Amino acid sequence: MSKLVVVGTVAFDAIETPFGKTDKILGGAATFIGLAASHFNTEVGLVSVVGGDFPENYLTMLQDRGMNIEGIEIVTDGKTFFWSGKYHNDMNTRDTLATELNVLADFNPVVPEHFKDANVVMLGNLHPAVQLGVIEQTKDADLHILDTMNFWMDSALDLLKEVIAKVDVITINDEEARQLSGEYSLVTAAKKIHEMGPKYVVIKKGEHGALLFHNDEIFFAPALPLEEVFDPTGAGDTFAGGFAGFLASSRDYSFENMKRAIIYGSNFASFAVEKFGTERMQTVTNDEISKRLEQFKALTKFEINN
Amino acid sequence: MSKLVVVGTVAFDAIETPFGKTDKILGGAATFIGLAASHFNTEVGLVSVVGGDFPENYLTMLQDRGMNIEGIEIVTDGKTFFWSGKYHNDMNTRDTLATELNVLADFNPVVPEHFKDANVVMLGNLHPAVQLGVIEQTKDADLHILDTMNFWMDSALDLLKEVIAKVDVITINDEEARQLSGEYSLVTAAKKIHEMGPKYVVIKKGEHGALLFHNDEIFFAPALPLEEVFDPTGAGDTFAGGFAGFLASSRDYSFENMKRAIIYGSNFASFAVEKFGTERMQTVTNDEISKRLEQFKALTKFEINN
Repeated sequence: MSKLVVVGTVAFDAIETPFGKTDKILGGAATFIGLAASHFNTEVGLVSVVGGDFPENYLTMLQDRGMNIEGIEIVTDGKTFFWSGKYHNDMNTRDTLATELNVLADFNPVVPEHFKDANVVMLGNLHPAVQLGVIEQTKDADLHILDTMNFWMDSALDLLKEVIAKVDVITINDEEARQLSGEYSLVTAAKKIHEMGPKYVVIKKGEHGALLFHNDEIFFAPALPLEEVFDPTGAGDTFAGGFAGFLASSRDYSFENMKRAIIYGSNFASFAVEKFGTERMQTVTNDEISKRLEQFKALTKFEINN
Repeated sequence: MSKLVVVGTVAFDAIETPFGKTDKILGGAATFIGLAASHFNTEVGLVSVVGGDFPENYLTMLQDRGMNIEGIEIVTDGKTFFWSGKYHNDMNTRDTLATELNVLADFNPVVPEHFKDANVVMLGNLHPAVQLGVIEQTKDADLHILDTMNFWMDSALDLLKEVIAKVDVITINDEEARQLSGEYSLVTAAKKIHEMGPKYVVIKKGEHGALLFHNDEIFFAPALPLEEVFDPTGAGDTFAGGFAGFLASSRDYSFENMKRAIIYGSNFASFAVEKFGTERMQTVTNDEISKRLEQFKALTKFEINN
């Protein structure tokens, strides 16, 4: 079986949306990525760090979903990373209320021996230095995929550019693509980001779908139009998890297969937003995913004889 | 041959974008709609009004492109409708600098005898009272398509609702769909607008594509990702023109064919924004349209065995 390494936060989130408010619940990029990727036929190994306050039953849940948690360091006298945010009424914008790095501040990622020969490495949102550390431990991987955020563009751009130069695929949102490239047009932005290193550039547009760029080829996957978006937290990570999980299980890194991976990413993301935090991703079944895939096909399929 | 009636403004526009600025140039909803629709195998009849200041050569151009202008009333002692606007840097928002109704203020549309049995009627953006007048003169049409704007929702909502109740298809943008329905989710908004009358609801999202709703079925057409959007003026009308022209020429009003019509609408709109005003739409060839159609196919096509 193929192997997928996922590095990213395993964390506590406290979320407020127009629909309600949570206390500290399970969150984190690696958590969402892993929950999606574990639906595929690939070994998923998480690399992260939590504090002594992190509940045992969360770790058990990750294992029960088929993830290998050997790479999750537990700092018993430390506290788990905590993020708190409040979404505006349009659900497209949010304010960060609190960010407590805690054990993340001194995180030195160690990829378990068993995962050093992983086929695919998914670098979830984290300090570029941590992402760089994981790349160095997985040099033989077929594919390195990078997810990042404007936060690192503001605070660690040079290091981030070093990471970008070393990866095969980058996934970022539209505003971040504009910030990184200095270009408003996403087509031009993707070209500039190509030149920084990645062969594939994925631009996530939230409810407006996602674009995949590869040389002069472009593929567009819509987001599923939903009656209700309950909580967008983790949607981008879930997208990345479906994308990476599918690629790792198929070991086919062609443009045609990247398209399928984007559709799987969008499919999983459409579930993630239906409930608070990871709740929906903990219960979604392969049958539900398969049914929704048919909706994605129907959504964009047309026949025109030209 | 089938017949398409187009009612809407034939006007002067003065446009400012980050790329430049125009004096008074040819514009108007019916102009853009007609320029797109005239590419199809259908007789296109414009119904509008202009003043004595409207250049003869503009009218000649419309005729040269195959449009019937019998229904364009010329008020020799009046002035042509004038709109002026300035786009912001993101090209998605604009300020209206001037709106001079002029001859539109007392416009009483008369559908020429030859077009009273039109197959399709495209009601371009105009006062709902004018749109209602055209509906009454084309009662036997297979299909009435309505385009409208938030301006009429603010100023003539009751009359607009009367028009909405009588049409088969409505095309509006996302913000207008939200305003008209009072719902944020476009899925829920489309349901409420269905209940007001139209069997088909088309929601235009500009650079984010367009959605087609019919009962519980949804189709999504992306906008073509472009390196440069030069002037978005008339893009929505051009979309409506491609949509209506294709439907009139095929006389097939099924959901499957509506999908094709949406793709044609998006295809034409992608040309309209490449130059100022109607400039690009006056020169675009069927060959260029056909080539771009292949790009639209490639953009969303994927194969997944579920």
